[in-house]
Amino acid sequence: MCERCYPGNNAVKHIPYDQYLDKVNYRLSHSGVFLTSHKDKDNTMVMGWGGITWYWRRPIFIVPVRTTRYTWHAINETGVFTVSVPLNDELREAMAFCGSKSGRDYDKFKECNLTALPGKFVRVPVIGECNLHYECKVVFKQTMEPSLLDGGIRERHYKEHDFHTMFYGEIAACYLTE
Amino acid sequence: MCERCYPGNNAVKHIPYDQYLDKVNYRLSHSGVFLTSHKDKDNTMVMGWGGITWYWRRPIFIVPVRTTRYTWHAINETGVFTVSVPLNDELREAMAFCGSKSGRDYDKFKECNLTALPGKFVRVPVIGECNLHYECKVVFKQTMEPSLLDGGIRERHYKEHDFHTMFYGEIAACYLTE
Repeated sequence: MCERCYPGNNAVKHIPYDQYLDKVNYRLSHSGVFLTSHKDKDNTMVMGWGGITWYWRRPIFIVPVRTTRYTWHAINETGVFTVSVPLNDELREAMAFCGSKSGRDYDKFKECNLTALPGKFVRVPVIGECNLHYECKVVFKQTMEPSLLDGGIRERHYKEHDFHTMFYGEIAACYLTE
Repeated sequence: MCERCYPGNNAVKHIPYDQYLDKVNYRLSHSGVFLTSHKDKDNTMVMGWGGITWYWRRPIFIVPVRTTRYTWHAINETGVFTVSVPLNDELREAMAFCGSKSGRDYDKFKECNLTALPGKFVRVPVIGECNLHYECKVVFKQTMEPSLLDGGIRERHYKEHDFHTMFYGEIAACYLTE
């Protein structure tokens, strides 16, 4: 077991946060990644926007979450989240479900037979069926000011006025599971 | 000459925006990249934070610029900028100068013998001595709300209360020059 891991957790292989930038960007922009949080229960959603950046001399995963989302309340209150990246298309069905249903109405882990592996640095699980994981602590957040956004984008992506909060999560851990 | 280039410009090799994610992130976080703008004159600064992300189904280069910077006024008013990435350490001296002096006081292109190659999609030059370039159009911008930032980061990086505006620039072109 990795000495940096909490006792009782599965062993993982810690890697540099930037080892899989290409894969993360590809998955984000093509099929999505899992954004997981925990408030009253574990919950996950599919995220297709955002990315890994470098701010304040530390790696930051920027994740945009609409203020109407169940996930939003969890991250906004707890200040922690994880991102789990599938490296192939096997989880297509789970992604379709998790990307279209709300955690208000479903236990998505149960519905999709997803395994919640305990996080090692934050009290949020990662998705056992994925291989690549990021554990993050929010160090900055800001909800979009609509008037500062390009009009075409506003019309196309925010018809319901459900703007995003950009959560800037410092990457506390990045690792692979089997 | 590339058919997508304005007549009279040097030929370039257009590449996918995500071909050099690793290199951009490495240069950003280790030595910096050139952030170039044009208002009354061409000007460039060195940027060490930010990154390439994916938002609104398009590639977005997020560049943070302090509101006190000469560059800030140019980007804020014109809505366009370029990022030029050196792929080695040859430009160390120019980076030291451009990263510490203000465009208010110097013509940095002249002082550092930098070549301003005309942009192909935006009216801002790229730095001829670099190899990798991004031309960007701002589609969203927002100045940081200090109260939403981690206290430690605020203390360490914003002693002068000179907070950043995050400029979200859609990548209109990405290419290599020789």
